[in-house]
Amino acid sequence: MKSDFDRLMAERVLDGLIVTGPSHANPAMYYMINGAHVGEATTVIKKRDEAPVIFANSMERDEAAKSGLRVVDRSQYDPLKILNEEKGDRLRARARLTAMMLDELGVKGRVAVYGREEQGEAFALWHQLMALRNDIQIVGEYGDTVFNRAYYTKDADEVARIRAVGEKTMIVVGNTWDFLASHRAADGVLVKDDGTPLTVGDVKREIRGWIREQELEAPEDFIFAIGRDAGVPHSRGEDSSPIALGQTIVYDIFPREAGSGYYFDFTRTWCVGFAPPDVEKAFREVLEIFNITSDAMHPGTPCANYQKMTNDYFEARGHPTMRTNPQTTEGYVHSLGHGVGLNIHEGPSLSEYEGNTDILEPGVAITVEPGLYYPDKGFGVRIEDFLWLNPKTLTLETIGEFPKDLVIPLKKAGGRRSSLRSGAGEKKKGTGGKGRGTKKREKK
Amino acid sequence: MKSDFDRLMAERVLDGLIVTGPSHANPAMYYMINGAHVGEATTVIKKRDEAPVIFANSMERDEAAKSGLRVVDRSQYDPLKILNEEKGDRLRARARLTAMMLDELGVKGRVAVYGREEQGEAFALWHQLMALRNDIQIVGEYGDTVFNRAYYTKDADEVARIRAVGEKTMIVVGNTWDFLASHRAADGVLVKDDGTPLTVGDVKREIRGWIREQELEAPEDFIFAIGRDAGVPHSRGEDSSPIALGQTIVYDIFPREAGSGYYFDFTRTWCVGFAPPDVEKAFREVLEIFNITSDAMHPGTPCANYQKMTNDYFEARGHPTMRTNPQTTEGYVHSLGHGVGLNIHEGPSLSEYEGNTDILEPGVAITVEPGLYYPDKGFGVRIEDFLWLNPKTLTLETIGEFPKDLVIPLKKAGGRRSSLRSGAGEKKKGTGGKGRGTKKREKK
Repeated sequence: MKSDFDRLMAERVLDGLIVTGPSHANPAMYYMINGAHVGEATTVIKKRDEAPVIFANSMERDEAAKSGLRVVDRSQYDPLKILNEEKGDRLRARARLTAMMLDELGVKGRVAVYGREEQGEAFALWHQLMALRNDIQIVGEYGDTVFNRAYYTKDADEVARIRAVGEKTMIVVGNTWDFLASHRAADGVLVKDDGTPLTVGDVKREIRGWIREQELEAPEDFIFAIGRDAGVPHSRGEDSSPIALGQTIVYDIFPREAGSGYYFDFTRTWCVGFAPPDVEKAFREVLEIFNITSDAMHPGTPCANYQKMTNDYFEARGHPTMRTNPQTTEGYVHSLGHGVGLNIHEGPSLSEYEGNTDILEPGVAITVEPGLYYPDKGFGVRIEDFLWLNPKTLTLETIGEFPKDLVIPLKKAGGRRSSLRSGAGEKKKGTGGKGRGTKKREKK
Repeated sequence: MKSDFDRLMAERVLDGLIVTGPSHANPAMYYMINGAHVGEATTVIKKRDEAPVIFANSMERDEAAKSGLRVVDRSQYDPLKILNEEKGDRLRARARLTAMMLDELGVKGRVAVYGREEQGEAFALWHQLMALRNDIQIVGEYGDTVFNRAYYTKDADEVARIRAVGEKTMIVVGNTWDFLASHRAADGVLVKDDGTPLTVGDVKREIRGWIREQELEAPEDFIFAIGRDAGVPHSRGEDSSPIALGQTIVYDIFPREAGSGYYFDFTRTWCVGFAPPDVEKAFREVLEIFNITSDAMHPGTPCANYQKMTNDYFEARGHPTMRTNPQTTEGYVHSLGHGVGLNIHEGPSLSEYEGNTDILEPGVAITVEPGLYYPDKGFGVRIEDFLWLNPKTLTLETIGEFPKDLVIPLKKAGGRRSSLRSGAGEKKKGTGGKGRGTKKREKK
């Protein structure tokens, strides 16, 4: 959390932080300025043990003020005059301007840099700054950075925002189920009113509409892949594929708040009409290890434990894993989950490797998403929920609830189904689904 | 254009390029892989005079293949084994992995890096790579980079995509005009059916809906600011402000294609009911210099000329400019325009500074957007069109046409206006508007 900054800077012996870039698609800037809207000419500097200051383009002074930070108008340094003095050399001019901002706050020594920028330009800039000022040492943190540590745990305000995205996503997912269930089948595929096959492209178009209707962003779209494509974890699916009965659909949806805000992440696997025995078996196993791991999770334990548990479980049932064969494209081919926040992937990591020291700390907001993939057999299965370890109650809460049913029943010929789908969160008696029933579970 | 890469690399004595990061919100990757959807673990490497190669996560092999590039599955390097060998040190593991990819293609020497990444992590990575391999020198280009040069000019395919965004934007802008025009006034402000004031927030909510309806993204939202806020160029406007008659509304909208594609950029200034004399005068001047500069533009001329022309024009009429006072917040406070493409701001720059060597080359796609701002007098005016210098015909084409009228007429009391607004592209006889009439203008 943001209150950890000074402690984290002290641990890393950092005298200052610089964050640059626009607030859009740039989690470090968004986080630092509390979601205010600023453009690319923005710099935030924080001296250790002092409040951060935003250096904004004069044109953006009103928006910058919405950050709640002290605003310094960068036009006071006369950037155009500096650029003229440097004969139009923008790199030298930018380095000089940055040095003036650091001087304004008396920042020197070890200064770490953050924010998504064109990496080549940033590389040039920080070298230029060090060439200009030998009392400044630019530090590039990797992995366990000050920001990544701060992102690692979420407070209730952040989770309230994620929960709102989760609830809207549940509406989109519910609509998708209902939409599929409302079609009739012919010759082994779902068909539209005109008798032509319903395709992945048709369904995706509807889903995009519902995402927009909920005023969410899906900057990286979503996954809706059927059959063999569902067996390739990050295949987005082919628009031309028909919705064939008895084939698995992997539906992985990860929208965020409008304006580059917080993400939510969720997956279900469905088969329309029926599930073949091998799919049903895989689904039961994925659901079982989902329940085993999420029931086992409790505060203070190493995250790698749960990936180990999952690898053990699948290997015992004869599935290849990345632990037994790193290049396998069959079996269990990814990690159990990851943190989610302003980044779709952030800490902690639920991977199993030497040196993964990530701990399930109170406040983590993570996905749990075991899966099994057999592209050559034409199927894949993944089940993903979003969990928050409430730091007050130390319980693991599911954010966004939806039944874990495998089979979408076929519409009866000649009539509409009386009820399309039981409500989200309600217990159901589907083939593989058993729901989670309770929203909060006590942890030791 | 992309066909320039090898020549540009030769000019800069670069042996290779590395592009990293996801395709989302990352123009260099999007450009390199032709808009395919890939996640953050992606690396593209291009050896000079050879085709680029994409190194993708095994899970994303299908999506990577859509790039049309040769795909190498990075799992063949066994990243988890490397991570274990490095005792979980992700930085060292990533540097080793990158070195293996470079070796695969025989790339060494001067290698430039591109793509939006967390700059501190990138800074650390490239230093780690150089520490590992003394036959590789990482180059950070700044400003006039290989990519920025390639982006600088657009071919007909790129402009067709921008044009489609422009046409959708014109629908949004037309809806906005109609929506404002459909309201009645009371006590100097527009009011809703229930008699309460129509606010900026109400209008923005509608605009966001229309943007979604057109299946566009507005990652950085848009500007709809009235009165004093319109006098601060990048103020987004306050939701609570009523739409007061006779106050300028600056409406600057810059959406892009869904999926981090091409941007469009456009501004109009409106007053509901009437325009006060000082606003009308400012509007006439802004429109006049808009026409003077865009009429004067022709291929091969320095872009700075047009900013100089604009500064001269406004200064001759007694307005402060950034040339006369760099810190001014009144008068003409920004540059005349900029290139637009996968980045909302890219080359060329229509700024006036020593060393701005940008030329109006055939193929540039730019904004022309003069403005005048008087926040203390409670108004601002900006007019912005999007122009493409067609490299075949050498004519400057307006992309997205809309009348340049200042005043939105008030709805007559007691009845609906028979026609809300003349169609986009149609000539109108408004107070200040005169339209551009022709779509193409011959250039010498």
